[in-house]
Amino acid sequence: MDHTKILLDENEMPKQWYNILADLPVEPPLNPATNEPMNPADLEPIFAKELINQEISSKKYIDIPEEIREIYTLWRPSPLHRAHRLEKVLGTPAKIYYKNESVSPAGSHKPNTAIAQAYYNMKEGTERITTETGAGQWGSALSLCCNYFDIECKVYMVSSSFYQKPYRKSLINLWGAKVVPSPSPDTQFGRKIREMYPDTTGSLGIAISEAIEDAALNDNTKYALGSVLNHTSLHQTVVGLETQAQFDKTEDYPDIVIGCCGGGSNLAGVSLPYIRDNLAGKTNTRFIAVEPSACPTLTAGEFKYDFGDMAQMTPLLKMYTLGSEFIPPAIHAGGLRYHGASPIISKLVADGIMEATSYHQVEVFDAAVTFARSEGIAPAPESAHAIKCAIDEALKCKQTGEEKTILFNLSGHGHFDMGSYDKYFSGELSNE
Amino acid sequence: MDHTKILLDENEMPKQWYNILADLPVEPPLNPATNEPMNPADLEPIFAKELINQEISSKKYIDIPEEIREIYTLWRPSPLHRAHRLEKVLGTPAKIYYKNESVSPAGSHKPNTAIAQAYYNMKEGTERITTETGAGQWGSALSLCCNYFDIECKVYMVSSSFYQKPYRKSLINLWGAKVVPSPSPDTQFGRKIREMYPDTTGSLGIAISEAIEDAALNDNTKYALGSVLNHTSLHQTVVGLETQAQFDKTEDYPDIVIGCCGGGSNLAGVSLPYIRDNLAGKTNTRFIAVEPSACPTLTAGEFKYDFGDMAQMTPLLKMYTLGSEFIPPAIHAGGLRYHGASPIISKLVADGIMEATSYHQVEVFDAAVTFARSEGIAPAPESAHAIKCAIDEALKCKQTGEEKTILFNLSGHGHFDMGSYDKYFSGELSNE
Repeated sequence: MDHTKILLDENEMPKQWYNILADLPVEPPLNPATNEPMNPADLEPIFAKELINQEISSKKYIDIPEEIREIYTLWRPSPLHRAHRLEKVLGTPAKIYYKNESVSPAGSHKPNTAIAQAYYNMKEGTERITTETGAGQWGSALSLCCNYFDIECKVYMVSSSFYQKPYRKSLINLWGAKVVPSPSPDTQFGRKIREMYPDTTGSLGIAISEAIEDAALNDNTKYALGSVLNHTSLHQTVVGLETQAQFDKTEDYPDIVIGCCGGGSNLAGVSLPYIRDNLAGKTNTRFIAVEPSACPTLTAGEFKYDFGDMAQMTPLLKMYTLGSEFIPPAIHAGGLRYHGASPIISKLVADGIMEATSYHQVEVFDAAVTFARSEGIAPAPESAHAIKCAIDEALKCKQTGEEKTILFNLSGHGHFDMGSYDKYFSGELSNE
Repeated sequence: MDHTKILLDENEMPKQWYNILADLPVEPPLNPATNEPMNPADLEPIFAKELINQEISSKKYIDIPEEIREIYTLWRPSPLHRAHRLEKVLGTPAKIYYKNESVSPAGSHKPNTAIAQAYYNMKEGTERITTETGAGQWGSALSLCCNYFDIECKVYMVSSSFYQKPYRKSLINLWGAKVVPSPSPDTQFGRKIREMYPDTTGSLGIAISEAIEDAALNDNTKYALGSVLNHTSLHQTVVGLETQAQFDKTEDYPDIVIGCCGGGSNLAGVSLPYIRDNLAGKTNTRFIAVEPSACPTLTAGEFKYDFGDMAQMTPLLKMYTLGSEFIPPAIHAGGLRYHGASPIISKLVADGIMEATSYHQVEVFDAAVTFARSEGIAPAPESAHAIKCAIDEALKCKQTGEEKTILFNLSGHGHFDMGSYDKYFSGELSNE
């Protein structure tokens, strides 16, 4: 019987993260007041020092501390699945693999960096962490992980998701964190936005501003970001590194690596170790970033310095952006509603190392249903973007007869997105 | 680093189910019209023949067909976790292990028998299957599995769960089945109950009657039951057999095996292979069935012949029962709201081979939160009954200093039960 899942023993889990900055430096964040590169020390009021070090490190490998590895083993190494049933339904000669990051307790890849961020903050004595969350994946992951180090956690959740996904906030509560819809009355910026746009469904840009303001104004409080920044991509490389160890147990190697892209962390996680091998001239893998047509950062944005948040409190980041004031429609892939993209992913796209494509949400849900009825798992709407692209690439193989190996990251399950599926089935989903 | 999860390769997955009837026959079902043992042929209008054969088989091992094993590999073998973090929180010398059946696409152990039932029905040409579901775990599992064999599926979902767990029905829809709240207007019996008890929250007994009536009256339609019957326990033994292969990779062997009990299938699954070894005189393991105080079948019911459903359409089963007209309160562990218990589990309890205990739902949710904050996973309220008992046994070890090995079955996750957690946290949960 052909294997369906390629597993690793816990001893085979990577002991280091891969830092692509050693092989491909990105342009530094700028201080908006001076347009000069940020002084890392200026970030210390809101970030743990070790995370700032990692943000700018040029060391190629960074050790994963033992305590983080121990918590990783609650769900890691995650399985790599061969999608035999999906292949059969499509009638494709392609081999489709997916890395199943939905097996974490929070249901996505997000705890990979949440644990690391909570750990380094604990080490430096942080007692409280604030953050924002789009779909709720990141907020629940950080809540889970702060719980392990007795750190208080407050989550500003984008209003559209807060109401679309009521049970994501229950999960946040279960792990002991506090969660409010953003814009909230709890911050100065939140109050201002509520006054200016009483009907707003919120955005990640707004929620980030609120969480940063809260961290900046409160004692012993730091801020944590679930994506975009270099250190989040660093921590996520455990995903791609594991898949490499898993492919070593097969006869296959991916010709194409696919991930959905909001801020870019799951895509970075699955792809950076393969990009390392491309940069070293060892391989010639294709990489595809998949985003929603409703928030087409990489496919229709501009590559320039811009703020990461709407209140313009962050440093300027060199990235693809739709403008920091862009408020995307309330599509159901809440985790992909971000005006920017990580500087690393942006540079990869700008340099032609990575391709980018976009899909409308109805075709994405079509793909999600095809996947759920073949592979079983109900995918998150975010991850379904990667599924749609993998299906399209597999169908191209069907036409050409090529037996390509396609890898995509199943970044999360859709157990807290069933309201969106209900709308899809009742035909209420708009094709934004 | 001590392992957190003990994994099996797909090649190590059991190739046969264990049939306890070979070692411990139970009393036969009776025809209520005659009080004589049922003629198996009388069950053919509603069950696939091979399932009837398995129901009464005295063969000790039954081969798992290759097509079923292939579908099992979508999520099986499931991990056996060592609950290091829970042990630390409790400060117990006990070793706590749990089998993680929440990893199936439907989120519970239920697909283990759903696949088998769908498969044998497909082999015999069944085009449509009806069933009932309590918490929705079984209904979603059968929906998933009928989908793999192109069998139409209709689910009668106990009304209290239908409204408490809206997204379980979305999951049922996602995999292509139809679902209605029971009592429904779609059957004669449903209409009768709606008239007699307009405010009823339903019960498994009612829903079973509806599903059987539908199967009996419609062409090429069979009925499927997710628990209680011998063949469901048979298929679930894959759970316990896997844990035995997993314990073989450790230095440990369970002193106590614990499972929550509604109809009894997950408890049977995890415990029967160990009971086999006790019966053979090889081991001296303790077994504990855990039920809700609100539906105390094993701890307060009577061991006698009774109907499996409220309309008294089923054969008479020798089991512990609260009476087939018993409607339990709408507690949140919907999967444990059954007036009876499987004849196998009932006999084990009556013979003193298995103990039974019960808990109120608030203390069960307390245990669920302790588990979620240590092990990460948000458990189903049903499974939390087993967790509560495992915690209590571990705390006894703390007092006595004994290093017992405790195994419980984490039969499912609570991702579709977050409304119940919300009520728990807001103090709205009654201690029924």
